Formats: sequence, structure tokens, C-alpha cells
Amino acid sequence: MTEKLSDAERDTELSPLLANGWAMVDGRDAIHREFQFKNFVDAFGFMTRAALWAEKWNHHPEWFNVYKTVQVTLSTHDVGGLSALDIKLARKMDDLAQG
Amino acid sequence: MTEKLSDAERDTELSPLLANGWAMVDGRDAIHREFQFKNFVDAFGFMTRAALWAEKWNHHPEWFNVYKTVQVTLSTHDVGGLSALDIKLARKMDDLAQG
Repeated sequence: MTEKLSDAERDTELSPLLANGWAMVDGRDAIHREFQFKNFVDAFGFMTRAALWAEKWNHHPEWFNVYKTVQVTLSTHDVGGLSALDIKLARKMDDLAQG
Repeated sequence: MTEKLSDAERDTELSPLLANGWAMVDGRDAIHREFQFKNFVDAFGFMTRAALWAEKWNHHPEWFNVYKTVQVTLSTHDVGGLSALDIKLARKMDDLAQG
């Protein structure tokens, strides 16, 4: 069962992401990151790999792409804020973005 | 060579799109459409097919996706507005969205 991140989990799980490229979204319990790639092929390739994980985990990003830029927002609709699923998907995206 | 759509082309090429789901973007010479699919697999499947055409034609959309919704904006950066490439990609996306 998915639940909102506890204060303890925010210290241990969320803080490292916020120290490495992710930021809280103003006015929402959500995180945001902008990824830059070499070109559209790399940007959309990243999205495709992330999409397969998102679908596998049944947890989908909000994301915007133009050419080599991908802007991602993660939050868990069912709990009205951040959950462990967002941490998992954010980490996976960071891994995928590194190739 | 890509050029901005002429007034005549706007009548003959752009008007049919504006009558069928596309709309002008406020304050920009660009068009916008929101596509709704059955689920994320269908939405991202549409994006993947559209991405291959976009790359083939070297003309890329601005697009946002969350779950089964895809919002697309088309404009041609090099000419500062709409060109024949946007008409071509819009028509292709309409075709792809119908399956």
C-alpha cells in the first residue's frame, strides 16, 4: 500500500535527491528535475526507457519535452503528495539519464 | 527551405486543422492540441510513433504528457512561427492518434 513519505523518510530518501538535481515544486508536494541531453534521439530514448519502468511500476511521470530537454515532475496522485514510488522513479530516471 | 506560412497557405492548410481539434496558442504563432488516449501505453505509444516521424523530418514538437493525456504545441523555431513542417507534423499526429 502506498503512503505519503514520513518525515523520517524525507530525511533519508528525499534529501539526497534534493541535493542532487531535484527540487520541490512550489505549492505542491512534488519534485521536479530538468534533464538535458545531446539531442532529441537521446532525450526521447531516455523517455522511452523511463516509460517502460513507469508502466511496469504503474507510476507515471508528468513530463514535458522539447528537443533535447526533458522536464519531469513526480508526485503520487493517490496519496496527494510524495510517496516511495516517486523516490524509486526519480532514482531510476537519474540512472537512465547517465546512460 | 522552410518559410513562414503565407496568408494563402493559412487559408488552405491551417484552417482545416483549426476546424478539427487544433487551436492557435495565445501570443505565439503556434498551434496546440490535446490528445486523450485509453491509458499510458496508448499515449506513450502515440508519442513514440510521432517521435520517429519528428526525428525523420528533423522537426520536433513541444509536448507534455501525464498518464493518458498528451498536449502538443507545434511551431518552427527557425522561422519564428508556423511553417509547412508544422502542418505536416500536425496531420501526421492526427493520423497516428486515430490508430
